[in-house]
Amino acid sequence: MLAEIITIGDEILIGQTVDTNSAWLGEHLNAYGVEVIQISSINDKKDSIINALKAAESRADVILITGGLGPTKDDITKKVLADYFGAKLVPNHEALENIKNIFHRRGREVLQINVDQALVPDNCEVILNTKGTAPGMYFEQKGKIYVSMPGVPYEMKAMMEEVVFAKLNATGDNYTIEHHTITVVGVPESHLSLAIESVEDNLPSHVKLAYLPHLNLVRLRLSAKSTTRSSSKLKKDIDTAFDAIKAVIGNVWFDGDRNLSEIIGDMLKASKQSIGTIESCSGGYVAHSITAVSGSSAYYKGSLLTYAYETKVAIADIDQDLLNSVGAVSQEVCEMMAMNAKKKLDVDYCIATTGIAGPGGGTNEKPVGLVFIGLAKPDGTVEVKRCEFHGTRLQIIERTAYTALDMVRRAQSPSSQLESA
Amino acid sequence: MLAEIITIGDEILIGQTVDTNSAWLGEHLNAYGVEVIQISSINDKKDSIINALKAAESRADVILITGGLGPTKDDITKKVLADYFGAKLVPNHEALENIKNIFHRRGREVLQINVDQALVPDNCEVILNTKGTAPGMYFEQKGKIYVSMPGVPYEMKAMMEEVVFAKLNATGDNYTIEHHTITVVGVPESHLSLAIESVEDNLPSHVKLAYLPHLNLVRLRLSAKSTTRSSSKLKKDIDTAFDAIKAVIGNVWFDGDRNLSEIIGDMLKASKQSIGTIESCSGGYVAHSITAVSGSSAYYKGSLLTYAYETKVAIADIDQDLLNSVGAVSQEVCEMMAMNAKKKLDVDYCIATTGIAGPGGGTNEKPVGLVFIGLAKPDGTVEVKRCEFHGTRLQIIERTAYTALDMVRRAQSPSSQLESA
Repeated sequence: MLAEIITIGDEILIGQTVDTNSAWLGEHLNAYGVEVIQISSINDKKDSIINALKAAESRADVILITGGLGPTKDDITKKVLADYFGAKLVPNHEALENIKNIFHRRGREVLQINVDQALVPDNCEVILNTKGTAPGMYFEQKGKIYVSMPGVPYEMKAMMEEVVFAKLNATGDNYTIEHHTITVVGVPESHLSLAIESVEDNLPSHVKLAYLPHLNLVRLRLSAKSTTRSSSKLKKDIDTAFDAIKAVIGNVWFDGDRNLSEIIGDMLKASKQSIGTIESCSGGYVAHSITAVSGSSAYYKGSLLTYAYETKVAIADIDQDLLNSVGAVSQEVCEMMAMNAKKKLDVDYCIATTGIAGPGGGTNEKPVGLVFIGLAKPDGTVEVKRCEFHGTRLQIIERTAYTALDMVRRAQSPSSQLESA
Repeated sequence: MLAEIITIGDEILIGQTVDTNSAWLGEHLNAYGVEVIQISSINDKKDSIINALKAAESRADVILITGGLGPTKDDITKKVLADYFGAKLVPNHEALENIKNIFHRRGREVLQINVDQALVPDNCEVILNTKGTAPGMYFEQKGKIYVSMPGVPYEMKAMMEEVVFAKLNATGDNYTIEHHTITVVGVPESHLSLAIESVEDNLPSHVKLAYLPHLNLVRLRLSAKSTTRSSSKLKKDIDTAFDAIKAVIGNVWFDGDRNLSEIIGDMLKASKQSIGTIESCSGGYVAHSITAVSGSSAYYKGSLLTYAYETKVAIADIDQDLLNSVGAVSQEVCEMMAMNAKKKLDVDYCIATTGIAGPGGGTNEKPVGLVFIGLAKPDGTVEVKRCEFHGTRLQIIERTAYTALDMVRRAQSPSSQLESA
């Protein structure tokens, strides 16, 4: 089954918004055996929308349209679709109730333009928007499927996951496809690729390997696709290939594409241990990464965020003389931060970060990207890692957090066959 | 001048890469008065490329093509362009020298596939790649301009900045375009649209208004385009329209589309005041939002992240009896958090957050999404706002941070005519 994506709205064309929706759709449609053959971003003029629809339906079976469903005047997608399919706009009871509920919960008056969001073409199947007000629309016209969804990423994703993927699957193709992903931490893509080259060269022809690098993670995705083999056989083919990969790389991977924070959360829950943080250069991002996981209060107790010199002294008892002599960005201060915060927060593990996130503040001796990451452990020792990260301020902050979390993962499950960066 | 962007390669279609090149091109072309009317992402098959070229040249004056110029077999852009324009591939001396220099510097042997990268169609003007090996190509054919560049962002950007923008400017245009954006905080899109309806209805025909909502922010972008009016006149038209909007909405906006964190950073730098945070439910995200801004160490001193009950007592001196009687998620505890942390961190402003981010942990009395946000101010008072947020855990965390930061903004610049959430 071939699909095209049309995104409607000026914000992508003038570069105000980066189109992350299409990447998400492409990745997930692929997993359902639907191949995206073109993505078109167009403006919100009637002619542009109609031309894009005509071009897409000449090539694809499914046309996914995002954007242009807001309540304001520049949002015309719904009206154009109704005209294009010769339909009338009629009120939809369920969509209206949904809108009223949302406004009621927020204690806001329902305006006429909000009521009008519940108008839909009379020849579509309405997709309830469980995250917002604008209803989605599912059309079967001219032997093709057209799906119109809001451009707000979480509203669109919810519609896809709750309704659209299942519908496409049901009308879908006759081949079977299975995917599985493992995540490798701290090994550069080129080193990983060299290490598993012989496994990759010997994969059966219906099994494909993809590298999806992100910061210091590389996701390895195996896909097996066949018109003759069953789903369970394909899963076995994938397992066999992953076993061969794991045998080569050793303990630098975890299963799935879950966050490292979720992984260490599970480990800490299982071992009934607690964790805390003390951050300087990462500015709260390590804490945020840990607490973004639902249920993290079971193991996460808190943090001292000692951004300023005087705060390091005032709330974490860092020695003023030590700060003066070796500076805040140093092995010694990092170690003291981890130890002192472990005690103050009364936790089993404590992560400490201190470094230069940039872009300003670097020197020859201590360049931007220099970060010390400490981990105080249950046995009272502190491990300190000296890192030199590259990239933007935000990338340095993210790499600091990933590396810190992976130090916790390794402390909980040591031994590795592949040296990692 | 109208432009289209064509990106070639599977990586965007399968969601492995988010298309940031097009956003960058859209933003920068706009600044040169070139309007991007469509972005198409296609696969690297010959037919797809030719169909996309034909569609683009039927609409646009300039066609910018990125990707498909690598040395490997799946990179066919150059060959297809040569065929399409009836040209031969010939070696380019300057491009070959560039390739040899790069390989020499890296201490690598120049292979035949590297030499072949210096082959170019004999009817194009070569754009030297100062950041990599693949040369860019500039064609004037059929009364249109075609530019083919590598997909690697920094190689493409260098070619645009060093060569292409200047060439487009010279062959350029006869209309002028100006944009300006303001960001409105805490007013739902539909209410905002109702409030400024009469202004919107009376905009001159060459001025357009766009709504770009994101969480509790709505960006309002005005664009003015004309073949007769000068840039400074268009800017004045935009200013006039924004003055009318601002007169209606009052103090719920800030200029530009910068982050709220950058805005309050500038305010605090100007007023030489400092800020700290004490977070519970937002788990470090307020701190991260503030410290994501480069230079934030000038005003941000640190945070107490008191996630667990016992941490609230141990490091922020929250009264145990108070916690027992009213609970951590309460007006009283929020107020005490803000006051105590302001003192401990020795700051002018201190943000406090306590609430239930969910999805677990809610009760009838204290549902998921209930958040108290406190702001201790320089005069010693504490303002506490009771909020009921909706959405996922991450959305509740983000809305908490935005609302907290906006409380700081309002404290620094009070008075508002439009009620905000």
